[in-house]
Amino acid sequence: MATNGRELRSTAREDGTLELTIADVVHDDPAAGEVLVRIEAAPINPSDLGLLLGPADIASLRSGGTTDRPTLSFDIPASRRTSVGARLGQSLSVGNEGAGTVIAAGEGAEGLLGKRVAMLGGAMFADYRTLKMRDVVLLPGNASAADGASMFVNPLTALGFVETMRREGHKALVHAAAASNLGQMLQKLCSRDNIPLVNIVRSPEQGAILRDLGATHVLDSRGADFRSKLVDAIAETGATIAFDPIGGGTLGSDIMQAMEQAAARTMTEYSRYGSDVFKQLYIYGALDTAPTTLNRLSFGFQWSVSGWLVTPFLQKAGPEVAARLRKRVVDELTTTFASRFTRTIGLAAALDPDVLRGYERKATGEKYLIDPTRG
Amino acid sequence: MATNGRELRSTAREDGTLELTIADVVHDDPAAGEVLVRIEAAPINPSDLGLLLGPADIASLRSGGTTDRPTLSFDIPASRRTSVGARLGQSLSVGNEGAGTVIAAGEGAEGLLGKRVAMLGGAMFADYRTLKMRDVVLLPGNASAADGASMFVNPLTALGFVETMRREGHKALVHAAAASNLGQMLQKLCSRDNIPLVNIVRSPEQGAILRDLGATHVLDSRGADFRSKLVDAIAETGATIAFDPIGGGTLGSDIMQAMEQAAARTMTEYSRYGSDVFKQLYIYGALDTAPTTLNRLSFGFQWSVSGWLVTPFLQKAGPEVAARLRKRVVDELTTTFASRFTRTIGLAAALDPDVLRGYERKATGEKYLIDPTRG
Repeated sequence: MATNGRELRSTAREDGTLELTIADVVHDDPAAGEVLVRIEAAPINPSDLGLLLGPADIASLRSGGTTDRPTLSFDIPASRRTSVGARLGQSLSVGNEGAGTVIAAGEGAEGLLGKRVAMLGGAMFADYRTLKMRDVVLLPGNASAADGASMFVNPLTALGFVETMRREGHKALVHAAAASNLGQMLQKLCSRDNIPLVNIVRSPEQGAILRDLGATHVLDSRGADFRSKLVDAIAETGATIAFDPIGGGTLGSDIMQAMEQAAARTMTEYSRYGSDVFKQLYIYGALDTAPTTLNRLSFGFQWSVSGWLVTPFLQKAGPEVAARLRKRVVDELTTTFASRFTRTIGLAAALDPDVLRGYERKATGEKYLIDPTRG
Repeated sequence: MATNGRELRSTAREDGTLELTIADVVHDDPAAGEVLVRIEAAPINPSDLGLLLGPADIASLRSGGTTDRPTLSFDIPASRRTSVGARLGQSLSVGNEGAGTVIAAGEGAEGLLGKRVAMLGGAMFADYRTLKMRDVVLLPGNASAADGASMFVNPLTALGFVETMRREGHKALVHAAAASNLGQMLQKLCSRDNIPLVNIVRSPEQGAILRDLGATHVLDSRGADFRSKLVDAIAETGATIAFDPIGGGTLGSDIMQAMEQAAARTMTEYSRYGSDVFKQLYIYGALDTAPTTLNRLSFGFQWSVSGWLVTPFLQKAGPEVAARLRKRVVDELTTTFASRFTRTIGLAAALDPDVLRGYERKATGEKYLIDPTRG
């Protein structure tokens, strides 16, 4: 028996427009080892917005379609068109993670029927999703779909930061744009595991969010004495690795310069190549799409700047590490890794112009959840 | 019996000047396990100029002293003073490598007396150098001091590039500013070892130098079709690692973008995170001291940009690898790793204003050698 459902789609077209639509899709009965899940909660993460809206000029928004099947169109500025060449004309489904209830199960997966599960794998901004049973995680009995909706991207990213730090021989972290949902989770994780964390925020309000979670080191990058305070915090914690979702501009370079200055405090002999303390900056997002500027003469030759994404990290770390991290997320789902959603919307509402402008802002402290069962 | 000699020194002073002088130093008889070497050849490498002249404004050159003991003074522009804070007031000896004859040997090192050796370890712009015998390399009988003078920095750097490429799983290289002495050596090494090498130069004359050595891929970054040719050469060779001594500007970013475009040619599915081909850029110099600009949105998230220096590389690779690479340099000293010097000068002549302006230019194809026995 086939199941009819909706799915949110994003298409960049040759004519320089980006279109959001709601497509009708038909799900066949699940094959052996597969389950069909009714999606009840899917978070709108920054990483989803990259695919959903990517190169679009939000100010050019035009709405169309019907109440049930709304559409939105945007212009893609000429300067951004080269970056979307590879997706032109493709109707892309969106939504990295979600949670819901198993409503049909193939051979061997019958034990999951009626159970609540969490999922990772794309196309979660939809009514239903068919997945292999090994790609879903059974939620604990007390967890709601909303509790399980965000159990992959942010928790595994926060755990991935700490795991990367340890594997690469560092003992403390710097985190930029630190008041995000992910940043709050990282602070809770570091507090629990006694890992020194230097948080960089952009307003006193953001700083207060982290201090309420017990953060010790919270620095406002807009403060006049930011640079000297950063050197002090790095010298105190010994942080030599940083994670930055902003990417554009000089903040990452400034962090490495501060690490070098902290290292120089204990140097006894001059070297024109700088200190022998290795400094690592990972860029894991593109909140600022401007180029990254490295004033590398200020931090010597012992450094590396790299892209970081959770999926390649997990692949590189291997299945045992991935399983260990996933188990920890389930164990601490409603404590360390609890997500707080400020607004829950239906699937069609995601294409409401005012709603879209709200979640597209990526305002600190705001987090949207899609519940397709609301319509 | 003490030995009196001269030593070139560079001092950055609190008053914003940099001074070059020739100091008198006394060498005691070598202790057990040590040798005293009369220096007969020491190359002026770009890495030496960084320490010798570093932040100085060359145009401000003022000469003084006597014919035997000349001095040179320079202004340090205010903008560069923070970068020299750690060396202020220190009289620094200069010269990373050299070769000469053992004229005195301590207990256990007598076998080296009268032998010609090569050395790494600083303070080679001098008449004599005392070193532990394990820090000198006996030259083959047919090798002159000039043959052995450059057997560490450039040869081990070229070998280090290839070793790094292999250890990190790449199969072909890109090299920028490729017509340098080092670049020519790298081309000879890659030709001998059948490693695909993409050379980037800045003039047709530089390109001709490399083609004469048998280079297949030589691209002029000032050519109108440079970018598309670079993508073609990278696609053909499969190069995913690059070494760049320039550092400033966008060339490194352009190389990674070309690697990403080459990778995209074989991608079957769109990913907003770019290709899954890992791209590595190593910056090993500062020919351009401007900031490094990374247009990272053009090359996805699978990349790393890092500083690279030969000494930390050898330390990380371990003593067995270092010994293997050193042996290869000795074996191919007058072939693969032969250096060509265009001018040989005495020690005092290094402080002659016209001579200094000549070696400070770092012109392609020019290479200066200091022979202190010439006065």
